[in-house]
Amino acid sequence: MIGVEDAWLAALVAAGVAPPTAACVLGELVYEQDLAAIARESESAGNPVVALVELLRDRARVGTPLAATWLHRGLTSQDVLDTAFVLLARTVLDQLLADARSQIARLVELAQEHAQTVMVARTLTQYAVPTTFGLKATTWLTGLLDATDDLVRVRGALAVQAGGAAGTRAAWLELAQVTGQPPVHDVVPALLTQFADGLGLAPCQPWHTNRHPITALGDALVTLIDAYGHLANDVLVMCRPEVGELSLVGGGGSSTMPHKQNPVLAILIRRAALAAPMLGAQLHLAAADSVDERSDGAWHLEWDALRSLLRDCAVAAAQTTDLLGVLIVHTDQMRERADSVADLLLSERDGIRAALGADPSAHRGPADYLGAADEIISDVCDRAAMTLKGL
Amino acid sequence: MIGVEDAWLAALVAAGVAPPTAACVLGELVYEQDLAAIARESESAGNPVVALVELLRDRARVGTPLAATWLHRGLTSQDVLDTAFVLLARTVLDQLLADARSQIARLVELAQEHAQTVMVARTLTQYAVPTTFGLKATTWLTGLLDATDDLVRVRGALAVQAGGAAGTRAAWLELAQVTGQPPVHDVVPALLTQFADGLGLAPCQPWHTNRHPITALGDALVTLIDAYGHLANDVLVMCRPEVGELSLVGGGGSSTMPHKQNPVLAILIRRAALAAPMLGAQLHLAAADSVDERSDGAWHLEWDALRSLLRDCAVAAAQTTDLLGVLIVHTDQMRERADSVADLLLSERDGIRAALGADPSAHRGPADYLGAADEIISDVCDRAAMTLKGL
Amino acid sequence: MIGVEDAWLAALVAAGVAPPTAACVLGELVYEQDLAAIARESESAGNPVVALVELLRDRARVGTPLAATWLHRGLTSQDVLDTAFVLLARTVLDQLLADARSQIARLVELAQEHAQTVMVARTLTQYAVPTTFGLKATTWLTGLLDATDDLVRVRGALAVQAGGAAGTRAAWLELAQVTGQPPVHDVVPALLTQFADGLGLAPCQPWHTNRHPITALGDALVTLIDAYGHLANDVLVMCRPEVGELSLVGGGGSSTMPHKQNPVLAILIRRAALAAPMLGAQLHLAAADSVDERSDGAWHLEWDALRSLLRDCAVAAAQTTDLLGVLIVHTDQMRERADSVADLLLSERDGIRAALGADPSAHRGPADYLGAADEIISDVCDRAAMTLKGL
Amino acid sequence: MIGVEDAWLAALVAAGVAPPTAACVLGELVYEQDLAAIARESESAGNPVVALVELLRDRARVGTPLAATWLHRGLTSQDVLDTAFVLLARTVLDQLLADARSQIARLVELAQEHAQTVMVARTLTQYAVPTTFGLKATTWLTGLLDATDDLVRVRGALAVQAGGAAGTRAAWLELAQVTGQPPVHDVVPALLTQFADGLGLAPCQPWHTNRHPITALGDALVTLIDAYGHLANDVLVMCRPEVGELSLVGGGGSSTMPHKQNPVLAILIRRAALAAPMLGAQLHLAAADSVDERSDGAWHLEWDALRSLLRDCAVAAAQTTDLLGVLIVHTDQMRERADSVADLLLSERDGIRAALGADPSAHRGPADYLGAADEIISDVCDRAAMTLKGL
Repeated sequence: MIGVEDAWLAALVAAGVAPPTAACVLGELVYEQDLAAIARESESAGNPVVALVELLRDRARVGTPLAATWLHRGLTSQDVLDTAFVLLARTVLDQLLADARSQIARLVELAQEHAQTVMVARTLTQYAVPTTFGLKATTWLTGLLDATDDLVRVRGALAVQAGGAAGTRAAWLELAQVTGQPPVHDVVPALLTQFADGLGLAPCQPWHTNRHPITALGDALVTLIDAYGHLANDVLVMCRPEVGELSLVGGGGSSTMPHKQNPVLAILIRRAALAAPMLGAQLHLAAADSVDERSDGAWHLEWDALRSLLRDCAVAAAQTTDLLGVLIVHTDQMRERADSVADLLLSERDGIRAALGADPSAHRGPADYLGAADEIISDVCDRAAMTLKGL
Repeated sequence: MIGVEDAWLAALVAAGVAPPTAACVLGELVYEQDLAAIARESESAGNPVVALVELLRDRARVGTPLAATWLHRGLTSQDVLDTAFVLLARTVLDQLLADARSQIARLVELAQEHAQTVMVARTLTQYAVPTTFGLKATTWLTGLLDATDDLVRVRGALAVQAGGAAGTRAAWLELAQVTGQPPVHDVVPALLTQFADGLGLAPCQPWHTNRHPITALGDALVTLIDAYGHLANDVLVMCRPEVGELSLVGGGGSSTMPHKQNPVLAILIRRAALAAPMLGAQLHLAAADSVDERSDGAWHLEWDALRSLLRDCAVAAAQTTDLLGVLIVHTDQMRERADSVADLLLSERDGIRAALGADPSAHRGPADYLGAADEIISDVCDRAAMTLKGL
Repeated sequence: MIGVEDAWLAALVAAGVAPPTAACVLGELVYEQDLAAIARESESAGNPVVALVELLRDRARVGTPLAATWLHRGLTSQDVLDTAFVLLARTVLDQLLADARSQIARLVELAQEHAQTVMVARTLTQYAVPTTFGLKATTWLTGLLDATDDLVRVRGALAVQAGGAAGTRAAWLELAQVTGQPPVHDVVPALLTQFADGLGLAPCQPWHTNRHPITALGDALVTLIDAYGHLANDVLVMCRPEVGELSLVGGGGSSTMPHKQNPVLAILIRRAALAAPMLGAQLHLAAADSVDERSDGAWHLEWDALRSLLRDCAVAAAQTTDLLGVLIVHTDQMRERADSVADLLLSERDGIRAALGADPSAHRGPADYLGAADEIISDVCDRAAMTLKGL
Repeated sequence: MIGVEDAWLAALVAAGVAPPTAACVLGELVYEQDLAAIARESESAGNPVVALVELLRDRARVGTPLAATWLHRGLTSQDVLDTAFVLLARTVLDQLLADARSQIARLVELAQEHAQTVMVARTLTQYAVPTTFGLKATTWLTGLLDATDDLVRVRGALAVQAGGAAGTRAAWLELAQVTGQPPVHDVVPALLTQFADGLGLAPCQPWHTNRHPITALGDALVTLIDAYGHLANDVLVMCRPEVGELSLVGGGGSSTMPHKQNPVLAILIRRAALAAPMLGAQLHLAAADSVDERSDGAWHLEWDALRSLLRDCAVAAAQTTDLLGVLIVHTDQMRERADSVADLLLSERDGIRAALGADPSAHRGPADYLGAADEIISDVCDRAAMTLKGL
């Protein structure tokens, strides 16, 4: 929030609305220990901006009185909070994209390394046809690539919120009118551009009650966790001791059973995946319940949900990176199982040959009924290479 | 589902996998009255495709035995159901885009017609600064434009699901191997292209447990209803008799109070807006809970949620179109209220002038403190014109 | 809804408010084929009651004009719809309790029969300590008993909604005033009692915007599906071919793989369990968003959610009964696995003995480390017997 | 968590399982500054208990080595975390009941004081019939009484979780076997009773994967916030300046508009009411997704949701108490509006009289068409008195 106020004050000065002597680095006026007092006073205004602005004004008044006069002038609380959330989201998105980069690279490795690692495919929990672990890794990869596309799009669209009290920007013109600088018809684009540029965000029409920027962000975050959840679920099934096709180096211990090696990373990722859909839904509910020029509760509904979603996403991404680093693939176990139930896995093939009057060829095994697995792996890896180039 | 089976059988023939004599228009073999029996048998397989395929085979056997042999060959239940949902979604999306087209045009009219209709802006339920009804209509328009962009993107990405039993397409190669046609390395692209082209959808890698196509669709639908909800909420507040700034021609009647004119369309739209977020979340939960090569419950979770969401969206869109057609704007009431509380509405301005040491100019009214409302209206209407061109 | 109107008209007559000649069995005036027309006209009033009342009045006018005059007099649409939902809920609750009765009995059998069937307990997917299948069945049973307690409580509290236009029952007094019968100070208790008794429901203060009756119902339904979901999840894990400790007679088939025996019942129950939490949440959202004397959308939000929840619950209950009827317990497989990993299962015990300086006694196996499993089974079966007596 | 470990160690000693010299007040061994280290190490085990137990053992080893040996012996991480959440819930529930007590008393005052304060009832946002503010307060009161009943029931059922590694309590018997104290068949009831009594909770069969205790708690909390939300929504509508029937002393200020008096308390309560349903749904999802003897993610899903729900509930309760303390009822405004639209408010009555052929009596006003409002107020206030007695 301080960064937003800083950028706005700088924009007022840069646009010529406020005098150069109003310039001030607001971030130097407040300290971490001010946080408790601001938090305490937030309830009375219904948000922390009013208390923060008062504090900044008090502090600025001492050394740069003109900064005290000018800071926040033209903004409303919602401008500050919304834009602060955008900045917070940017930090997380950049970290998520960095995580995605290394995860994509790792999944490409897994897909290619295991393109010939035959295993059983399971549908509705039961053995279906043969597949390869490479194709399974490719499926995880596709989910991640789809999610990354969404993250990149949302990252590119991050924009400031700057509308003033009710989205008309009336105060901006008033300020220019009073000071005579800049010409009134220039002030809106001048301030908006300076403000947006100062924060490295896109300029935008006010979105006080148009919450698409928030829901689009939320949807992209949930989509990413969906992809992680899918991966974690597969890992959890395959780490079950009866399955034994995957394991994690150094699983989590138990407080009472010394032998336990729990697939904790996958469990925690799965938790995030179960939690995320409703966090995203809270953001949509906030959007759907928008009313007037600032919503009476719906706006406030976003804060905790978005914060939780950003946190869960950042943590799940880090845990997925970690998980991929400690994943052990038990290829022998995969192949042995596939061979041991070869008859079942080839029953579709047998059915086809019977239906078409072809000889059932006795000597073929699961490895000979893999269809286009290789081509799918190869196509998705090509897509991954393109995505990595763009990141 | 029949359309999907039809397109697949045609693809098998067109690609040279099945003989020309296997061609058959499956849609002519089944009737609406078959529905109950198929529904009844759906529970045992956990989906309606198995029963449908059996029925089609029984019926085809009589006149075109080769069609009975070949139909569905190479597909799995999930291919049929997923692609059928995509077709259903396309029908709804096309209707939604048609609705959006007329709504955008109507909102542009309202925005421009009322660019000078001064009214109070309300934040957190209380009077804030002056605004115009044109700017309010513009806010609704922005929400609709954002949602329309998403719909267009999702509409353009609709793709077939075609992976066979577990996403390897192994049966496709087997079929080609048995019949010797086409050369095995051509059969996958040939079948996929024919199938996708036949349905007017994009080809795609299998997405059995990568549910991005479904969640992206769901998110776009929820986003659209969010925009409608925002509009409906504003209408509901402004139709309150104490506010009286809007009304709907021919509101809904009461079963006991003859005078009642309830803003029923807005109420029903608001209902859909409250319902949609969790319907979208069900789809994300299904995606996040994906496992194996076909999920044991998560896949099935999508059906009712997606069906409800598509229905609610189609109905809310039609109701929004209707609502915009019967909306009466009480401009006098808007202006009179703004004038009557002019002092409050201008208190921000007074504060600014006081802070900057400027003369409080007594003779200006709400109409003179509208900021960049006109420019915002104009910008968004330009964007609307671009969007309409692309639709 | 017709049943509600019928009971109300009968109450008006029985209380002496309406004359005996106003009596009429409304259910005989309308037919299933009227449904489409009523549905079509429901949008304009925002609910189906207005159209239904008009139709009933038209039909009654022919033979019993006084019934046409008196029917619905004193009610409002919400009274009719809410009470109709209560009646619908009662039908479902009674079916659920019947299902619960047979499920409890079956689970008691399983618990007692398998009190000595040793198997591995699994925590966080990994082997933990020994347990018995009897204790696992007991865990399912406890969940069902908890849910049944809630169902019984909710079933006993089902009450009519009868408040008139806005919850004041003003029309009731007006009717008595006009007709002079019964004395005005008696009319409210007289009508309320007759109405409630006629429907076999409890009398109640109006709950137009106090939605506790709906949320309590919804919570009980979700809680029941939670219990079914828990059971289904365990069945799904234990039916995995690698685990093989349970199977279902006659699992669901596949459209392409002849060998498949999918645990379809468990899958469909799991689907319902994943869907139910957000359906229940829709009902709470409706309650939380209540406003005025009838909510502008929140009320309407209940309908689809409650209908879906009742349906899902009824279906999941029937499927759970079916599932318990076809469940095969592979006791050998359970015991063999427990024996084969006895060292792991006893590592907690070894740790205890080491910590306390006791001799590790080499000759004991999983069957000797079952703790209080028997006592827990016995206690819960006693509770089940008490519950069954009360049902 | 420390309280739980403390109570368990004391139970081991009191039951004679552990020697008296193992007694130790664990809470004195750890400090707030240990928290960061425990938090840091929680990820690897997937919960904070393992790290906490290790720390306690390290610290105890110095002065009371037998405490180090015995502490946590017989428990599992889930026992500690689940019971700690129950203790946390109890603290919050007690606070909520204290809040409810004062809110009930205040609402009874409002109901009785305003039993004759005539105002318009609003249905679907429009004027309906006359009501009184006393009846409106009574409606809020009914919601609170219903919720309080649920809180009391849940509060009374709070129970310990104590099942050991997988719910068999095998370690308890092993401990007794090794030490020879108490006789093995007594150890389970002895430990359970001591443990439960030490914490002031009920004894209970293990509920590792039977999450009814958590969902019942969650449902009661959401139900309470529903009631607060209903009240807040009404306050928000009635505080709208166009309505002006209520106001809050000292509303929240704005960062830019000096005149603003925002109904901040109602807004924040409304936020909590919109958030709560999905928090409750997360808990049901966790229950519905239970599997094995400890769930692989579903268990972990509860933590953040329950913590948020407890916090939101405590805050919303405090804010509701505050709101009721600063609520100003504008009785003149209520009455004047009702009089000014008397014709509309009496149209139901006119319709009744016309239908029954009675004289429309011209001289009666809204105050004469209040039905049973007084009786309803009186009945609910009687119920409130009973509830208060029981609290």
